[in-house]
Amino acid sequence: MQDVAEAAQVSQTTVSFVLSGRPDTSIAEPTRQRVLEAAQALGYRPNAMARALRQGTSTLVGLISDEVATTPFAGLIVRGAQDAAWQHRRILALVSTSHRDDLEQEAIDSLLQHQVDTFLIATMFHRRITIPPALRGQAVVLVNCISDDALVRSVVPDEQAGGRLATTHLLEHGHTRIGIVDTLHPGPAATLRLQGHLEAMADAGLAQAPDRIVHRPGDQEAGEQAARQLLDRPDRPTALFCLNDRAAMGAQAAARSLGLRMPEDLSLIGYDNQEVIAAHLHPALTTMQLPHHELGYQGASALLGATTLPPGCTRLACPLVRRASVSPPARTP
Amino acid sequence: MQDVAEAAQVSQTTVSFVLSGRPDTSIAEPTRQRVLEAAQALGYRPNAMARALRQGTSTLVGLISDEVATTPFAGLIVRGAQDAAWQHRRILALVSTSHRDDLEQEAIDSLLQHQVDTFLIATMFHRRITIPPALRGQAVVLVNCISDDALVRSVVPDEQAGGRLATTHLLEHGHTRIGIVDTLHPGPAATLRLQGHLEAMADAGLAQAPDRIVHRPGDQEAGEQAARQLLDRPDRPTALFCLNDRAAMGAQAAARSLGLRMPEDLSLIGYDNQEVIAAHLHPALTTMQLPHHELGYQGASALLGATTLPPGCTRLACPLVRRASVSPPARTP
Repeated sequence: MQDVAEAAQVSQTTVSFVLSGRPDTSIAEPTRQRVLEAAQALGYRPNAMARALRQGTSTLVGLISDEVATTPFAGLIVRGAQDAAWQHRRILALVSTSHRDDLEQEAIDSLLQHQVDTFLIATMFHRRITIPPALRGQAVVLVNCISDDALVRSVVPDEQAGGRLATTHLLEHGHTRIGIVDTLHPGPAATLRLQGHLEAMADAGLAQAPDRIVHRPGDQEAGEQAARQLLDRPDRPTALFCLNDRAAMGAQAAARSLGLRMPEDLSLIGYDNQEVIAAHLHPALTTMQLPHHELGYQGASALLGATTLPPGCTRLACPLVRRASVSPPARTP
Repeated sequence: MQDVAEAAQVSQTTVSFVLSGRPDTSIAEPTRQRVLEAAQALGYRPNAMARALRQGTSTLVGLISDEVATTPFAGLIVRGAQDAAWQHRRILALVSTSHRDDLEQEAIDSLLQHQVDTFLIATMFHRRITIPPALRGQAVVLVNCISDDALVRSVVPDEQAGGRLATTHLLEHGHTRIGIVDTLHPGPAATLRLQGHLEAMADAGLAQAPDRIVHRPGDQEAGEQAARQLLDRPDRPTALFCLNDRAAMGAQAAARSLGLRMPEDLSLIGYDNQEVIAAHLHPALTTMQLPHHELGYQGASALLGATTLPPGCTRLACPLVRRASVSPPARTP
């Protein structure tokens, strides 16, 4: 600012008044122009930290995540949040804590000390969290997670409606013997997807046989084992609902090794619409889209005051993505 | 600070002196203790922005990336950089620009205005970039990318040595008819992988037939087409080197549809060791590990002065990951 003052041959106070854009000063227009030109010529950069100190706010929006930035699952949350932040000329600063409480604490402290006062907290998997004490009193919106504090706003996928919709899709194709490959993932996602499934079955007047639900960890190999257990029996299901796409990838391998044609002998539906696999399986996998971009976008929009979210949990729909893995069951000979 | 002064019944100047830790003041010890206790009781947080303004530096390290945070490919770069930053009590603030120059410019300005003065620039795919003009004169290390400026430090995967090693692995198993599924990806990765392959073939006294190299985009479907073209001929290759794992996933589907046993009738090697797929194919895919964690870690360590990197480009090895998709070729009947 001193350089600008010298170049424009005015006082620093005049430079400060002109560059602050305050309307309540009486600076002659030629002087004002001279200051603006000097500032531009010198590449003057308004000091956001000084402004933030004065105003107590920052252009940065903090996104604290467990490992969204370091895993292949939830990157669209970041993109959605960024798209919303950018519309308000705010920059998303993403800090990934790798599930380390000490790192989370330091990261939050560091952002708070930089006057960052708007925070998204995002998790890779839909789960319940405790809001870090350092963020009490700050503007916070949770994305893909919920907390015990009923006043905090959060946006999560509507897993239950998704489980219901996936099941209805199979029922509409004429399947009644539907096997479930559960993922045993801790947290609400798998539980709610399963609950939605059972509701849709009950609505259709069908009782789900307990031994048609197999619980295994949600990776490909576990999905393959679970599917084999379900398919290797006389009254085998005509369709499987796998509670994530990795398990469905394994289930497809199991069906192939048993010589089953897909979708004629076995229909498959997954959940997540996971990049890299879902669209590229054989047959391409019909699945439920996790609304990750929308979660990030809605969360950031509400955080920045552009939209409103009610206190507590808002659930966003998981749309059905129709591909080639579901058909009516082949007629039994 | 005013609250602390009132609670400790001293002047703000005294509080400032005590909390700044300056040794050159003569404040009575009981007074000093009273101020420290009041500060602690009130949860006084030293203002990092004020300190940064004074010292011209920040606890934040900027990581500017094209889309590392929003795609499933290079998350380990972030984790590696974060691990290194954290060792020096620095917090990584990740800004993803989605390949938008205007957003990149604003993001960099915003970080500079917050006195951030150490920057990693990372790209999802290994490629050549132009360093944003706003970062000239700042401490910058490039990760997974290179620039035209020979003085800038960068760390990238050694793609050429990786292509050589993958090929040597096939040659050692007795393969001489090796097909290449090229990925047509712009940038140095595919080109250098192919170059390493040709060198290893030449070293073994083998000429690579041009029609055994098929160029297609690097997704699963293109890999499947390319593999089918290579395998659907009388002198079909006994092994394929696919220049990424997605193409290898497609090649596996092609081989399966042609009734080829793997690895007996066809060995496959990929590149990337891509999460979600490489370890979970049937057979599990032997591939080359992209050293993403190491790239991030080395880049951040050098940026923060903990290690040194020479000016220009440093190449890190891509280790071979042995799984089940490579065996000696079956004897021709």
